[in-house]
Amino acid sequence: MYILIELIGIFFFAVAGSLMAARRGFDLLGSAFLGGVCGLGGGVVRDLILNQSPATFEHPVYFVPPVLAALCVYAFTPAVQKLHRLVQLFDAAGLGLFCITGTLKALENDFNPVTAVLLGVITSVGGGLMRDVISNVTPDLFNPRDIYALAAMVGAALTAVAWHLGVMNVPVGAGIAALAFAIRVASIRFSWSVPLAAGHWHRSHPATGSNDGPQRHY
Amino acid sequence: MYILIELIGIFFFAVAGSLMAARRGFDLLGSAFLGGVCGLGGGVVRDLILNQSPATFEHPVYFVPPVLAALCVYAFTPAVQKLHRLVQLFDAAGLGLFCITGTLKALENDFNPVTAVLLGVITSVGGGLMRDVISNVTPDLFNPRDIYALAAMVGAALTAVAWHLGVMNVPVGAGIAALAFAIRVASIRFSWSVPLAAGHWHRSHPATGSNDGPQRHY
Amino acid sequence: MYILIELIGIFFFAVAGSLMAARRGFDLLGSAFLGGVCGLGGGVVRDLILNQSPATFEHPVYFVPPVLAALCVYAFTPAVQKLHRLVQLFDAAGLGLFCITGTLKALENDFNPVTAVLLGVITSVGGGLMRDVISNVTPDLFNPRDIYALAAMVGAALTAVAWHLGVMNVPVGAGIAALAFAIRVASIRFSWSVPLAAGHWHRSHPATGSNDGPQRHY
Repeated sequence: MYILIELIGIFFFAVAGSLMAARRGFDLLGSAFLGGVCGLGGGVVRDLILNQSPATFEHPVYFVPPVLAALCVYAFTPAVQKLHRLVQLFDAAGLGLFCITGTLKALENDFNPVTAVLLGVITSVGGGLMRDVISNVTPDLFNPRDIYALAAMVGAALTAVAWHLGVMNVPVGAGIAALAFAIRVASIRFSWSVPLAAGHWHRSHPATGSNDGPQRHY
Repeated sequence: MYILIELIGIFFFAVAGSLMAARRGFDLLGSAFLGGVCGLGGGVVRDLILNQSPATFEHPVYFVPPVLAALCVYAFTPAVQKLHRLVQLFDAAGLGLFCITGTLKALENDFNPVTAVLLGVITSVGGGLMRDVISNVTPDLFNPRDIYALAAMVGAALTAVAWHLGVMNVPVGAGIAALAFAIRVASIRFSWSVPLAAGHWHRSHPATGSNDGPQRHY
Repeated sequence: MYILIELIGIFFFAVAGSLMAARRGFDLLGSAFLGGVCGLGGGVVRDLILNQSPATFEHPVYFVPPVLAALCVYAFTPAVQKLHRLVQLFDAAGLGLFCITGTLKALENDFNPVTAVLLGVITSVGGGLMRDVISNVTPDLFNPRDIYALAAMVGAALTAVAWHLGVMNVPVGAGIAALAFAIRVASIRFSWSVPLAAGHWHRSHPATGSNDGPQRHY
């Protein structure tokens, strides 16, 4: 179950990465690389934090999904205006699966529940964060217009509870993944959002906030 | 002493991270996350380099400061035009404390003084660098208008000397931290600066330098 | 041979990093830091993935090349319009050497050939990727106008083959490095390129693609 869920989650994230590469006008190899970073990055960070040699680099099979993803995106390039939404959709699917695998792996390594949930969140948001950072765009993670980390946190918390109750199995996992995915997608569709970091500002602020950043320095 | 200094330093960096989140218009969870990255990132990198499981993920207490910081920034949002200065101020406070803890931890792990000082610098600039990179702004670390890494380097070097002389204790540490903090803040106030990477250019160059970057590629 | 090649490769990458610092208007310390990240980053990531304490931090000698590079760039600052080309040239030289050392180190650690080649590629593109990411520019790695990762991949693959045939020695290594370097440089000169991630788009797209990124979010 474990490896399979991981591979599927990696594929979803890899597609999100390759779609980002398409959106940013990168080439096919960059697409496979970005898909790999997006699909495998979160897990590698998790394993480094668990002080283990990343599983990713022990089974070459982990590198198949990113290559497949890059080829799929190359073959079926969607219309450019759809790209951002599609990145978010596949990203959400990966998010749902990774918040489970990340949390479980931490719990199996005897981490306390709090840390396990945080590692689950890191595993599930890490890949997408790296994708956005190395693509030089403001991370989706920080978009104040919808819910991202919260969806992963809910999924990770439910996973920790289910694991402690000893009721963690495929259907339960599938349900948790579906819930996290649903929260993320619904938040985009219905503009649910978390309050801004800056309590009382007007929502229109981010636009400027996001652009005056680099200029501010010089 | 050690843990306490770390927690205080983490809080200062976390506030800097959450203020950056406010400045960039991110949401409250993004604020806690960015505060966590800024406050804990440097230490995690240091521990990974020391090939240890990051202390951060063994004591959940390390995650309290970022949450507190995000709530403080949410509750007492400063005026937007003050944000950049405040980020720099709290960042400087964290810098002063982390250049000590980072260097000490490396020395206690039998690293040679040169490497220990470098690890101290990496620990103290790492969090702020990650904050700026994932916020998609040009890192403060590279701002040619003031002194950043040099302040951390002075603090780390003095720490290494004090440690080798066996006179490292709370007051000495406090003095070193205060000095590093003072150098950083004074350099911003009085525009002290290190020479540019490009020897003979006019100081007005950076403005263009910082903007033609991304465009250059395509 | 091994250490020497690494040091030379580190110097080339460090010069590329310091030139980028000059191009972006950073200061001298930022130049040494960026050179260090560019020259040592790939190797550190490789060692972390190999779950080893990074060699970089055990021999202070590794920090000499970045300091030298920063001083060279400071002393002989080229004309600004030449900077981007020079960054690419030194980057290509480092690429040629690192795709060999990275692959060999992975093979010596009993990694399977596929993973070893990938680690070689990661080692050789990692430093430049970090340089571009923390300089807040779109990574050269993703530039669709020339060949980057493919050159490293060819070098890494040939290294793996030579190692398995037991014919890996200095001249062979030099030949492989020269080939990878030549592919990279020729691709820039003659605009060889890999197909775009998005199959059927017009090559003029990237320009917009690279700029609408950040704005897209808010």
